[in-house]
Amino acid sequence: MSILLGGVVNANARDPLPSWNDGPAKQAILAFVKATTEKSSPKYVEPNDRIATFDQDGTLWTEHPLYGQAMFALDRLGKMAPQHPEWKEKDPFKSVLAGDREAMSKFTESDWMEILGVTHAGMSTEEFVALVREWITTAKAPRFNRLYTDLVYQPMLEVMRYLRENGFRTYIVTGGGQEFVRVYSEQVYGVPPEQVVGSSIVTTYKDEGDKPVLMREPKVFLIDDGPGKAVGINLFIGKRPQAAFGNSGGDQQMLEWTQAGDGARLMMLVHHDDGDREYAYGPGGGLPDTHVGTFSDALMAEAKKSGWIVISMKNDWKTIFPSEKK
Amino acid sequence: MSILLGGVVNANARDPLPSWNDGPAKQAILAFVKATTEKSSPKYVEPNDRIATFDQDGTLWTEHPLYGQAMFALDRLGKMAPQHPEWKEKDPFKSVLAGDREAMSKFTESDWMEILGVTHAGMSTEEFVALVREWITTAKAPRFNRLYTDLVYQPMLEVMRYLRENGFRTYIVTGGGQEFVRVYSEQVYGVPPEQVVGSSIVTTYKDEGDKPVLMREPKVFLIDDGPGKAVGINLFIGKRPQAAFGNSGGDQQMLEWTQAGDGARLMMLVHHDDGDREYAYGPGGGLPDTHVGTFSDALMAEAKKSGWIVISMKNDWKTIFPSEKK
Repeated sequence: MSILLGGVVNANARDPLPSWNDGPAKQAILAFVKATTEKSSPKYVEPNDRIATFDQDGTLWTEHPLYGQAMFALDRLGKMAPQHPEWKEKDPFKSVLAGDREAMSKFTESDWMEILGVTHAGMSTEEFVALVREWITTAKAPRFNRLYTDLVYQPMLEVMRYLRENGFRTYIVTGGGQEFVRVYSEQVYGVPPEQVVGSSIVTTYKDEGDKPVLMREPKVFLIDDGPGKAVGINLFIGKRPQAAFGNSGGDQQMLEWTQAGDGARLMMLVHHDDGDREYAYGPGGGLPDTHVGTFSDALMAEAKKSGWIVISMKNDWKTIFPSEKK
Repeated sequence: MSILLGGVVNANARDPLPSWNDGPAKQAILAFVKATTEKSSPKYVEPNDRIATFDQDGTLWTEHPLYGQAMFALDRLGKMAPQHPEWKEKDPFKSVLAGDREAMSKFTESDWMEILGVTHAGMSTEEFVALVREWITTAKAPRFNRLYTDLVYQPMLEVMRYLRENGFRTYIVTGGGQEFVRVYSEQVYGVPPEQVVGSSIVTTYKDEGDKPVLMREPKVFLIDDGPGKAVGINLFIGKRPQAAFGNSGGDQQMLEWTQAGDGARLMMLVHHDDGDREYAYGPGGGLPDTHVGTFSDALMAEAKKSGWIVISMKNDWKTIFPSEKK
């Protein structure tokens, strides 16, 4: 009996967020879970309605100097180049193959779409998944020289697990590719494919040979970014989140949409202010604006006005990456 | 102890499909569940991968003489007509308001799109949900003079429950409107909103007043029918179903896509051959082709060739509707 009681006491005493320093951010998460899950709370939420949404790039893993999926596209271009000698003369391919970072930083959306078209389309969904799986298990990220999936944020993994332990379903709502993220989401974040909402291209059913396939076409279907995140949430989940986590202007409407519901709502933004341990950008940051994960002064003002909680990576997080765990 | 054992024996003896006559259809369902859920089975499927998809119209509830959602649209037109005197002179509205069934049976897809545009769009998602909720809880279906949600098929409710009890997640994959079906899917079928995949129109995020809204636009986003069902399944679920249930040509690709996976797969088609208790259409049926739930001779041949199991409503089902239950 004493063993049992000891177990209960330990369970209660266990800190569910050990990588978080004590402060307003950690306290807000704990208070939110208490308010929404204790039966006696006036803001109690039924388990079926407990939904939390997380942006990926810059919120769950490192996005600098370039989004992981953009690195995948560039690596893929390099591999395909020998079959496409014409690329040496033609932008945007020419600049990528020459490693011209200056030119690449000025790529327009249509340049990126052209790169996406040849690296992400013209193959079946199964072929694409195989390419992503090969890349994500071998490619190394700059600066840290580690797998991209090693550069996830330990404190955010703890928040996701803590919410799930309290009956929340955790969704990834990303501007990145839905089919890309689904390849590793379960293993890395504990989020199954059907709980990944992302940007997508058109797929077409083809039944010509042995077995039917879905072919990926070079045509945008859904841009799950900015206002598209509210659209994607309604389309894929059909329920309003109780909590939403982001880090850039592309997450603003997701946080607004979350906050527009009744009861207890938690809106949080990760601020990259730790150039020593990761990168510093956004208000007060040391990096020039690279159009990757822009956290503008206007967004900071909006957060203040709306009561959104800004997470300081420098001050709120004891550790950044799982590999630092003692 | 004897009470406990008695309970176990009763539980084992309980027929999970009491509204099904014993026959190949019922046996196929029982054999499929055994093959996919018994740990010792060579075709065992992990609980996370147990997915079953169900068409709605004609598979889970009555679709004749016209799809429920089309009836909603026509009712809505009638209610809106006083504010639109010009409709009296202009087709397709004119024919609907005159109750001209002959003309309506010849409506083209573009006629229906025009009706959809004024009845399903030009309002927020919240306004639309409220309209559907009011209609679905009051409107009566022809012939039976009952709520549409009373005309669900008791044997199919039993299959859905039986699959869920065995760890399957049951999805509705409908050519009908995703946002329409989500209004009542949980209460009627036990299927939560996020497990309803359907056709959809474009929504646009608007944040002009007090709270942001999603406005429904008169523009098709996804047609979740025919090949679109395989596309929708990949997009929303990201896993291949182990079992799929349909009743018409619009379900063919869903069944093909399901069958193309490895291991045990169950593909079933409901055949409406019971004019006394419901409607008889499709091969051998008594109704002329009304373009509602077409089960062609070619589909019947495809089912035979592919080993899909055709459910005879007349012979396989003891009861059709829940109200007949003893």
